[in-house]
Amino acid sequence: MQPVLRQLPAGALLFHRNAPAYGIFRLVTGRVRLERVTPDGTTVPVHTVRPGELFAEASLFSSCYHCDARVVHDAELHFYPRTALVARFRGDPNALFDFAAGLARRVQGLRTRLEVRQVRAAAERLLLFLRLQVDAGRFYRPEGTWKDVAEEIGLTHEALYRALAKLEATGRIERLRGAVRVLRTRPG
Amino acid sequence: MQPVLRQLPAGALLFHRNAPAYGIFRLVTGRVRLERVTPDGTTVPVHTVRPGELFAEASLFSSCYHCDARVVHDAELHFYPRTALVARFRGDPNALFDFAAGLARRVQGLRTRLEVRQVRAAAERLLLFLRLQVDAGRFYRPEGTWKDVAEEIGLTHEALYRALAKLEATGRIERLRGAVRVLRTRPG
Repeated sequence: MQPVLRQLPAGALLFHRNAPAYGIFRLVTGRVRLERVTPDGTTVPVHTVRPGELFAEASLFSSCYHCDARVVHDAELHFYPRTALVARFRGDPNALFDFAAGLARRVQGLRTRLEVRQVRAAAERLLLFLRLQVDAGRFYRPEGTWKDVAEEIGLTHEALYRALAKLEATGRIERLRGAVRVLRTRPG
Repeated sequence: MQPVLRQLPAGALLFHRNAPAYGIFRLVTGRVRLERVTPDGTTVPVHTVRPGELFAEASLFSSCYHCDARVVHDAELHFYPRTALVARFRGDPNALFDFAAGLARRVQGLRTRLEVRQVRAAAERLLLFLRLQVDAGRFYRPEGTWKDVAEEIGLTHEALYRALAKLEATGRIERLRGAVRVLRTRPG
């Protein structure tokens, strides 16, 4: 299904809570924040959407949005109109099956992220993240920057670099030109 | 669809990585841990399953499991055989639609949990969690215990109680017989 490309400047409200759900989006560039504004005017963050991410999927299955979506940095978005998408899913079970498969993978990925965040010590958290990316003995090279990795695992940029240095100093990783190799540990 | 009830003792392996996926599960009682064992024998935690939770859904859409599932505390599980479930979804698009809707809600819920974990200060993290549960002025009463809430938001039991005390002392919540009311803040 061909999405519609939309461009929105920073500050724009893409949709708001309880408004009729008219479609779902994939962020192409920029940044969008999902938030809820409580009756007393407090803004409560729900999620920060990053490029490549599909969002508002739950609104496909409900008549209205459950939060506000505000553009934080000028954004380009792919828009998938709800009626067209639902009609397609109703008419083509394979497309719906693929969509559900994508959602199941997202659930899996988010759970793993939560598990990584569970680890308090920065170096151990980073090591768990690396182990989930690659088997021991293999190299991991971030898709984006190490700063993105820091954000992904909930560390500051500085804490991530300290964690990398610590893992290297204690012989658990090896660094080579921007990549990192998880070293085998001796069982027992 | 009628699930099959299965009982497994602590220590049992429910399925292992790369084994053919034979179905998905809902944990009824007990605890199950999803984990990955790396080639050098290190166990890497992927997710801890709590009662009520559906898991291994991604295996519906792939031919094998992507991790191990080990019973941590004696468990009762509802088992949904993969072939029967896939056949049902292929034959009944409404059932698949409902299943996808459930997955979309899970994605939403997991994202919110990650956002809550993002907040470093315990009291602020708890306040964000409470604000996401109830609007200001309303009471929140945990479904389980406050200990479950602590686990849910990644705090120790003690840190949670200190956070509750701090929020009360600073006039942001009111406590009444196990429930908590988020007080309205004055805008500006």
